[in-house]
Amino acid sequence: MQEITSVQNPRIRALRALKKAQARTETGLFLVEGRKLCEEALRDAQVQTLLVDSRFQKQYAALLKRAGEVLVAPAHVLEAVCQARTPQGIAASVHMPAPLRLEQAGGLLLALDGVQDPGNVGAMLRTAEAAGFAGVLLSPQCADAFSPKAARATMGSVLRLPLWRGPLAQGLEALRGRGFTIVTAELGGEDFFAALQTLQAPLVLVIGSEGNGVTPQVSALAQKKLALAMYGRAESLNAAVAAGILMYAAGRAVREKGF
Amino acid sequence: MQEITSVQNPRIRALRALKKAQARTETGLFLVEGRKLCEEALRDAQVQTLLVDSRFQKQYAALLKRAGEVLVAPAHVLEAVCQARTPQGIAASVHMPAPLRLEQAGGLLLALDGVQDPGNVGAMLRTAEAAGFAGVLLSPQCADAFSPKAARATMGSVLRLPLWRGPLAQGLEALRGRGFTIVTAELGGEDFFAALQTLQAPLVLVIGSEGNGVTPQVSALAQKKLALAMYGRAESLNAAVAAGILMYAAGRAVREKGF
Repeated sequence: MQEITSVQNPRIRALRALKKAQARTETGLFLVEGRKLCEEALRDAQVQTLLVDSRFQKQYAALLKRAGEVLVAPAHVLEAVCQARTPQGIAASVHMPAPLRLEQAGGLLLALDGVQDPGNVGAMLRTAEAAGFAGVLLSPQCADAFSPKAARATMGSVLRLPLWRGPLAQGLEALRGRGFTIVTAELGGEDFFAALQTLQAPLVLVIGSEGNGVTPQVSALAQKKLALAMYGRAESLNAAVAAGILMYAAGRAVREKGF
Repeated sequence: MQEITSVQNPRIRALRALKKAQARTETGLFLVEGRKLCEEALRDAQVQTLLVDSRFQKQYAALLKRAGEVLVAPAHVLEAVCQARTPQGIAASVHMPAPLRLEQAGGLLLALDGVQDPGNVGAMLRTAEAAGFAGVLLSPQCADAFSPKAARATMGSVLRLPLWRGPLAQGLEALRGRGFTIVTAELGGEDFFAALQTLQAPLVLVIGSEGNGVTPQVSALAQKKLALAMYGRAESLNAAVAAGILMYAAGRAVREKGF
């Protein structure tokens, strides 16, 4: 346990750097904030460092015993490291989970084609884990799943879910070569619920960006283009809600056939 | 068309008052902000007043012709009336749609039992319209659907969807007396997808609060208590995502039987 007083301390500077995507990529580390996520990180992932507000040191005594490096610091140091306004006096730098290996993946996968909003990316990862998806592919245009805002919205799924980030068409082609069916969600596609019976694993469900849907390059790879029926005068659904409806219904349909 | 320069103008004070729930209830009016919602209000609802930033007057000329009262004002007056940081130079006060009449309702209804977050209430209304639900019941503990934040999150559905607000157990009892099946979403309930085959209209789907789920009083009225299966170590879903999955799947199952 190390007491730190300055935001200029080299260890604190290293943690602050994790606000930037480049530092996260270079180190393979990201930051989680708050009691619940830190607890889950200690249980489900590999924690590098726990940073705790000195006023909360007693409250978190049991947690601190389970971490390798522990830094104790005044509130203003935590504020400088964290993005949340109320990080509950605790944060942790955590090693990213092992990436999704396309050459071994099976079952159900989710692919995000340019989903921009970190809150949407986070909510989609959260739902993907709950719906039994084995991993998520993200195009380079997607919001970073390891940013503080996205990580928080996953409610911990980002600690566990294998991710792959890269040129999406290439990733999908690799999966198609291994027998995956590529299903895109597209306005004007075939009715999703009517097509459920025809779905089977292995399957990758592609969700496009909030404004523009899936890119033409990805759409060209799809064996099935499906859409949710809209009643009334509603024109669209919230992107995370739509993804949730599709993931749960597809998961159920595929599982009924056994995989 | 009337030119206004001061936030103290009586018409502007009346519009500003619509930020408060009490003034909305007393007048039956609420405020929508931005081009898209104002267009939809002119198409789908009864607009009382259009308020336009004088710099945008030309751009919105076609819209302004379709409104009864038009107020033209400088930017700071719009800012005082609106909640959004970028209301796109236009806002409207709109009459609430006719309320949901429980003694006539049929088909599919949604009921919200203490949903706290205005964004969640708004997203649920948006999904309810898209999924073909005929109306929504809200308990007094729910966030107000007509608040600026909730109204924006509905993406226009609040202009069209019949709502009922009151003591929820009472409302549900009235529906049960008319042959509605009351289905609650509850942790530990029967598997939702396994139970889909048994659902039929008329049906009311009840979603509980983000933190505490449905209240005991409402749970006691339910003929079916259903839950979404959770895989991995995910403990829950975003409330609006969960509601969306349930509404679309229930809607599909009920519609396959015809109603």
